[in-house]
Amino acid sequence: MALKVLCDRILNDGKCLEGGILKVDRFINHQMDPYLMKQVAIEFIRRFADLDINKIITVEASGIAPAVMLGYLMGLPVVFAKKKRPSTMADMYVSTVHSFTKQSEYTMIISRDYLTSDDRVLFIDDFLAYGNAGKGIIDLCQQAGATLMGMGFLIEKEFQHGRQYLYEQGIQRIESMAIIESLDNCEIKIKDD
Amino acid sequence: MALKVLCDRILNDGKCLEGGILKVDRFINHQMDPYLMKQVAIEFIRRFADLDINKIITVEASGIAPAVMLGYLMGLPVVFAKKKRPSTMADMYVSTVHSFTKQSEYTMIISRDYLTSDDRVLFIDDFLAYGNAGKGIIDLCQQAGATLMGMGFLIEKEFQHGRQYLYEQGIQRIESMAIIESLDNCEIKIKDD
Repeated sequence: MALKVLCDRILNDGKCLEGGILKVDRFINHQMDPYLMKQVAIEFIRRFADLDINKIITVEASGIAPAVMLGYLMGLPVVFAKKKRPSTMADMYVSTVHSFTKQSEYTMIISRDYLTSDDRVLFIDDFLAYGNAGKGIIDLCQQAGATLMGMGFLIEKEFQHGRQYLYEQGIQRIESMAIIESLDNCEIKIKDD
Repeated sequence: MALKVLCDRILNDGKCLEGGILKVDRFINHQMDPYLMKQVAIEFIRRFADLDINKIITVEASGIAPAVMLGYLMGLPVVFAKKKRPSTMADMYVSTVHSFTKQSEYTMIISRDYLTSDDRVLFIDDFLAYGNAGKGIIDLCQQAGATLMGMGFLIEKEFQHGRQYLYEQGIQRIESMAIIESLDNCEIKIKDD
């Protein structure tokens, strides 16, 4: 289940902070390792091999790197949902998302031009925590009449139960490259296969 | 000078809006074409072939895709400057940037862990307009003691004179893949070689 190269990297370069926070800004969400992104992308291709996907969707900003690498390898366009409405965007779908991690709300916006009822979408993001970003994407896809085929995450924080929440929202395929069982006592415990 | 495949795409899929705005959200800054990003990255490698670069820097969100593709092909780490301070970031460099396009100010933040005096940096971004994002990067590199080797942009709006402004700030190497001479009367005029 787990992508070893990512798990090793989390154990070596990840930092556990108070409050269930896993800091991976050395290789994922501030400094990025493009080669690791490619390895992750290949594993996503394997795991979603049976799905007929025509578009990758992600959210700015940390989802963009793995999503673009996956889009490149699969030959598919990538759309990133914006958190602020651009002044030049006229017709759009909007969803309001609550971030438990940041204790705040943000909007997720996709232009009507780039999400339609013809789309069979794979959503890619860096973290699966409580599943709220995923819920926003479900909402946007429903508004557009697009088919959400599955969701792929680099790191799942299992103890925040986002997977269960997204299953309950009707998502049938969720794949995570590394599943964190616990960050108790600031120790990173990764789920073994 | 110009990357033909990008110029053609701008002419075909770009939209010119009132106020000197060029909308490229079909292939660069909302929906992204990963294969185009790779072609752009290869051209950046050619143009900066003589420079000894060890790190790519960009700004969230639209710079990430070309920067990651370039980092991947060059085997280099990519750091994206954040516009909001993450709660988990302690030691950082901060610069305040004025956006003429959006008529607002924003901050640009890079952790001290990922920009140091050992770094020889190439800055990559989607647009060169007035050069203010570039000025922010110059400021951050100066704070860190890093060497800013050059700047590469997908699209330069020549009539907003950012290149001249950045030359005056001491930047010696600026490369743009497509240079827009004018957007007058909502007509896209690309500079011929």
